[in-house]
Amino acid sequence: MIEIEIKARASHQRLKKMLSDMGATFFAVENHSDTYYNAPHRDFAQTDEALRIRSVNGHSVLTYKGQKLDTISKTREEFETEVDGENTRQILLALGFVASGNVSKKREIFKHNDITIVLDTVEGLGEFMEVEIVTESDNDAAKEKLFAFLEELGIKQEDTIRTSYLEMILKKQ
Amino acid sequence: MIEIEIKARASHQRLKKMLSDMGATFFAVENHSDTYYNAPHRDFAQTDEALRIRSVNGHSVLTYKGQKLDTISKTREEFETEVDGENTRQILLALGFVASGNVSKKREIFKHNDITIVLDTVEGLGEFMEVEIVTESDNDAAKEKLFAFLEELGIKQEDTIRTSYLEMILKKQ
Repeated sequence: MIEIEIKARASHQRLKKMLSDMGATFFAVENHSDTYYNAPHRDFAQTDEALRIRSVNGHSVLTYKGQKLDTISKTREEFETEVDGENTRQILLALGFVASGNVSKKREIFKHNDITIVLDTVEGLGEFMEVEIVTESDNDAAKEKLFAFLEELGIKQEDTIRTSYLEMILKKQ
Repeated sequence: MIEIEIKARASHQRLKKMLSDMGATFFAVENHSDTYYNAPHRDFAQTDEALRIRSVNGHSVLTYKGQKLDTISKTREEFETEVDGENTRQILLALGFVASGNVSKKREIFKHNDITIVLDTVEGLGEFMEVEIVTESDNDAAKEKLFAFLEELGIKQEDTIRTSYLEMILKKQ
């Protein structure tokens, strides 16, 4: 699966009004507590990969994200599976992986046609939005569609961010 | 969790009669298709660890087994979690793990007090039995109990095997 995703810093109050006006539907609210792991055999900060156990509304999900596939979006390969969070943490530690940081956030999710819009309130960082299309393969049409959609919401391509929340938090510390 | 486990080569026909005579209860039959993975940063054949995705009756389970904790049994640390098998395979491959071998077997499971008895028919290897007690920590009392139980079944300590099915299959190839 390829996750075509663009992120920007954005005030939620204004966005919620605009999303409602354009007919986007509210889908769910999730509380994420994410722990990121680094590998014993390569440094994910260098390779631009991510391995994460997310605890969300009582469930745990293990996610691997590959390196970004272009220079304008956060498009990357992604695999995930629901897991037993504590046992998966034990497996990763036994294999030599180390916890590298935590990200806690509230995520409000909206849908508009095939676009998913998430409004993240990240502990210690503030308000962000991400727009996302999930496809079978990397494709430019989807990216153009997302940038056009952001334009409608008043967000320009140069205002978007490719830095992860984890990187921002580690930088702040 | 610690899995205190002893394995021996054993003809099932004779054992089933003895288990039934001593009042052991039949618990379940499972068809296991196991794929083992080796790590990019250390060789599990050397470190005596194991990482496996087991497909059993339509479910997938990821299991890590640490190195054996003594020289007489197969006692080792073990962590496992139910997973989406295909996505977990993709995560392991993306992280640089490599599939090192497959083991297919029919497992018939019996219980006798706190002892689990499994009769394994392993593709390409034949018939085996394992006796097992799961405890919070490594302990000699449980091992003595298992060896005494095997004695009752006519299996001596020197007839037990510490080699894994995977090692036996790789050796045969």
